[in-house]
Amino acid sequence: MTNQTAAMLVIGDEILSGRTRDSNMHYLANRLTEHGLSLREVRVVADDHAAIVAGVRALRGYDQVFTSGGIGPTHDDITAEAVADAFGVAITHRADAMALLGAHYAARGLEFNEARQRMARIPDTATLIDNPISIAPGFTLGNVHVMAGVPKIFEAMVEGVLSTISRGVPLLSRSLRVERGEGEIATAFAAFNAEWSDLQMGSYPFTQDGKYGTNLVIRGHDAARLDAALEALAQVMA
Amino acid sequence: MTNQTAAMLVIGDEILSGRTRDSNMHYLANRLTEHGLSLREVRVVADDHAAIVAGVRALRGYDQVFTSGGIGPTHDDITAEAVADAFGVAITHRADAMALLGAHYAARGLEFNEARQRMARIPDTATLIDNPISIAPGFTLGNVHVMAGVPKIFEAMVEGVLSTISRGVPLLSRSLRVERGEGEIATAFAAFNAEWSDLQMGSYPFTQDGKYGTNLVIRGHDAARLDAALEALAQVMA
Repeated sequence: MTNQTAAMLVIGDEILSGRTRDSNMHYLANRLTEHGLSLREVRVVADDHAAIVAGVRALRGYDQVFTSGGIGPTHDDITAEAVADAFGVAITHRADAMALLGAHYAARGLEFNEARQRMARIPDTATLIDNPISIAPGFTLGNVHVMAGVPKIFEAMVEGVLSTISRGVPLLSRSLRVERGEGEIATAFAAFNAEWSDLQMGSYPFTQDGKYGTNLVIRGHDAARLDAALEALAQVMA
Repeated sequence: MTNQTAAMLVIGDEILSGRTRDSNMHYLANRLTEHGLSLREVRVVADDHAAIVAGVRALRGYDQVFTSGGIGPTHDDITAEAVADAFGVAITHRADAMALLGAHYAARGLEFNEARQRMARIPDTATLIDNPISIAPGFTLGNVHVMAGVPKIFEAMVEGVLSTISRGVPLLSRSLRVERGEGEIATAFAAFNAEWSDLQMGSYPFTQDGKYGTNLVIRGHDAARLDAALEALAQVMA
């Protein structure tokens, strides 16, 4: 069994200008790894129609695509239109989303005004993604899951979407901390990886109290095999 | 005068697996904004030769491209080779980098072994980027600046590169905090942006103590014009 591939499209001027530090990528990366999907690529683009269309079209080749940002009620929220265009489908104030939002605002005595109705703009054939935080839904069109940028809402929507995607074999990892710099252990580590070539390995340098050290990480899908590799690696590095 | 455009390529399995939360994108975004460059796109790809080559080729159309990650001494550090391939130039253990690193290790009584020599692999015609932290240089090839992934080293290299790029007009911003949800102020905000159409505007919702609020952000290059717009916006939202 091969795990499904995934990509993410982060949409937002505020990320590219540095005003906001994105946290959705890191959240999604962890959840996909746990769920057994392989995140292969992330792109961050501006609130720009052409850039979003191009991003969606480029990433649709992966099995699952997750977007964040640009689905609110203000005029700079243009993601839904762009995703519809990327697929060449129409987008309207859809009855299901209108009913959902209409009931929400009616219950609170708030006007269901034109801006709020914008959040009911959903492409034809898309299915809604539940928003347990603030009601306004995301949507799934084909293999593209369109979600809010606000982290709490994004995270809730991710859980909803993942519940519809079958689990792959989670990528597991084991880590060995070595109190030597990368340059000292690199040759032995490369030889070790060549020997255990079914596993993916990476080395991540750190400094602590002015001394160099390295975290050696082994990744794979079989826990017993990883444990065996870790034990062997510890002997090599002892 | 039009500001130069920029893009970033983040290279690393550890970001895509969720093991590491990237901080270099946010750092670079802020510094480019201050320096007057316009960051238009970021891509994150795996430690995969073909993915890095494709990423560099796709992003070379921007005026300046910044990469992070994959230039250390271990076998999973493959960025330099991939960037050389993207440009179709040869890569060797270059004399200038060999001299730099050789002197560094000699002074510390450390062996300048094969792994450490890997860090002297620099594409033909590239210029070196100074690494004041741990010596091993980055490089600039054409309009692509190849830097380390370790944040402290990345940040030092960014400063070195920016000192070689002429400043643009910094993108400035003003922010107005409104204690109302986006749905309530969206129509007025869109009309306001249409009136001040030379400025870029965005709205960013937040919740605090269970209440909705919105940060309205105005961006542009002229401080006096931004101040005037902020004052006008405050009156509209009062």
